Amino acid sequence: MTTSASTKVSEQLCFGGKQLRFKHQSAVTNCEMQFSVFLPPQAETRKVPALYWLSGLTCTDENFSGKAGAQRVAAELGIALIIPDTSPRGESVPDDSDGAYDFGLGAGFYVNATREPFVKNYQMYDYIVSELPALVEAQLPITAVRSISGHSMGGHGALVIGLRNPERYRSISAFSPICNPINSPWGIKAFNGYLGDDQSQWVHYDAAELLAKTQQAKPILVDQGTADNFYPQQLRTDSLIAAAEQSGSNAQIRLQPGYDHSYYFIASFIEQHLRFHANYLSC
Amino acid sequence: MTTSASTKVSEQLCFGGKQLRFKHQSAVTNCEMQFSVFLPPQAETRKVPALYWLSGLTCTDENFSGKAGAQRVAAELGIALIIPDTSPRGESVPDDSDGAYDFGLGAGFYVNATREPFVKNYQMYDYIVSELPALVEAQLPITAVRSISGHSMGGHGALVIGLRNPERYRSISAFSPICNPINSPWGIKAFNGYLGDDQSQWVHYDAAELLAKTQQAKPILVDQGTADNFYPQQLRTDSLIAAAEQSGSNAQIRLQPGYDHSYYFIASFIEQHLRFHANYLSC
Repeated sequence: MTTSASTKVSEQLCFGGKQLRFKHQSAVTNCEMQFSVFLPPQAETRKVPALYWLSGLTCTDENFSGKAGAQRVAAELGIALIIPDTSPRGESVPDDSDGAYDFGLGAGFYVNATREPFVKNYQMYDYIVSELPALVEAQLPITAVRSISGHSMGGHGALVIGLRNPERYRSISAFSPICNPINSPWGIKAFNGYLGDDQSQWVHYDAAELLAKTQQAKPILVDQGTADNFYPQQLRTDSLIAAAEQSGSNAQIRLQPGYDHSYYFIASFIEQHLRFHANYLSC
Repeated sequence: MTTSASTKVSEQLCFGGKQLRFKHQSAVTNCEMQFSVFLPPQAETRKVPALYWLSGLTCTDENFSGKAGAQRVAAELGIALIIPDTSPRGESVPDDSDGAYDFGLGAGFYVNATREPFVKNYQMYDYIVSELPALVEAQLPITAVRSISGHSMGGHGALVIGLRNPERYRSISAFSPICNPINSPWGIKAFNGYLGDDQSQWVHYDAAELLAKTQQAKPILVDQGTADNFYPQQLRTDSLIAAAEQSGSNAQIRLQPGYDHSYYFIASFIEQHLRFHANYLSC
């Protein structure tokens, strides 16, 4: 793969580490992409492992950077945070025909689109799995020791990408993930749009379907708030719990009473997720 | 003072406490005001002391709530966070004639305006000192044991209000405050606009002028990043340091190498500020 170098857009000191933002021309999504990185202080003297964070619908790389409060613990543990955007961007990138928030720009669903007009740009699965790690591991003091996490649509992405690529990720976690998109209004709309109506192609992007068939999955931690407006209809946490039981996985899927779908929920539990991943990232 | 009851706009669980947003008709600013409150878990069973946080230019009550990561430590220490807006709001409230960011809406500078057309609404000093505490202490499990902090324009507000009302605040802190607005472009514009050109009225709202004349000020902690784009010209931290020396105050005024003016700076040090205030809030 040909990956062009990235250009640093901004650098800010945060908890003794560096909060960075980059842009680059992606050979996978055929547009300019932005992403954020937090480098902990330890990266001044050695390469560090990385947690990839996938954000939810309507988000960019800036929501998690600014709102989750993850840098404090990442700085303590010596973990880099790699925070991509949620879709291709730009005037040449096709959007939802109605401009809806749940398809198109800001809503890439971490799939490789096969349908026109989305196939050229909406290749977020390959972007996250291959191009972005190659880029940051070549240009920054970051090792190939990776874990992956995310929120909502990004929780779906983290579970799917982690389950399909166990050789590339040590551990997986998610907040409020879309667990069973083939049975969720959001997922059905997105998969029809990006993949077409052959549902045999959809199951490759469905965490519950994948987990049910996975032997010896990597360690998984999921937190779901019970006051989340999208729970249970859009998120289908029950399907993931059933899949974990079916596969004999020891996934921890926790219901958190009273928490909603917001970054206040993520901020409340991100420390536990970072410490969970640190167990497997050799920190 | 007649204070109308407030209406709850939202409630979200955060670190086991409640992140709340209210609106109310202010008798002081003659418009509808919004403010945010974080109630720590301890407030379920007893009244708790409060840290008032004043935000900077262009901010609302939502910036600190969403970006500073203060709730984690406030929940541990049992401190409520009271987070007002930065100016009166609404279509009937006059704005800067050019729509500039540094005067008018989002830029009340925590003064009581005396000039037309601002005098009717821009009474943020009285709003913060009197109306808002009376409101939250009457309606929420919050005591009259208070400390005050803020950022930039809000750091100016916290220092001025804390220094002028030592009987009302136990301790004062600030991030990147406008220390000497009578000698700062931002301050000169704001004070001319709200107070007119009689500079004898300006000194009542100038932290360096006030501190220089204060005997036995309450405990003060100030953090200032050295990579802040507004340092030193707009912020004039040197004037505050000189005033502290002149008055014999034991204010801690710290320069933090490499930090900028952003919430990444605030997030990095907010824990230290909360623990500083907790020493005086009887937590």
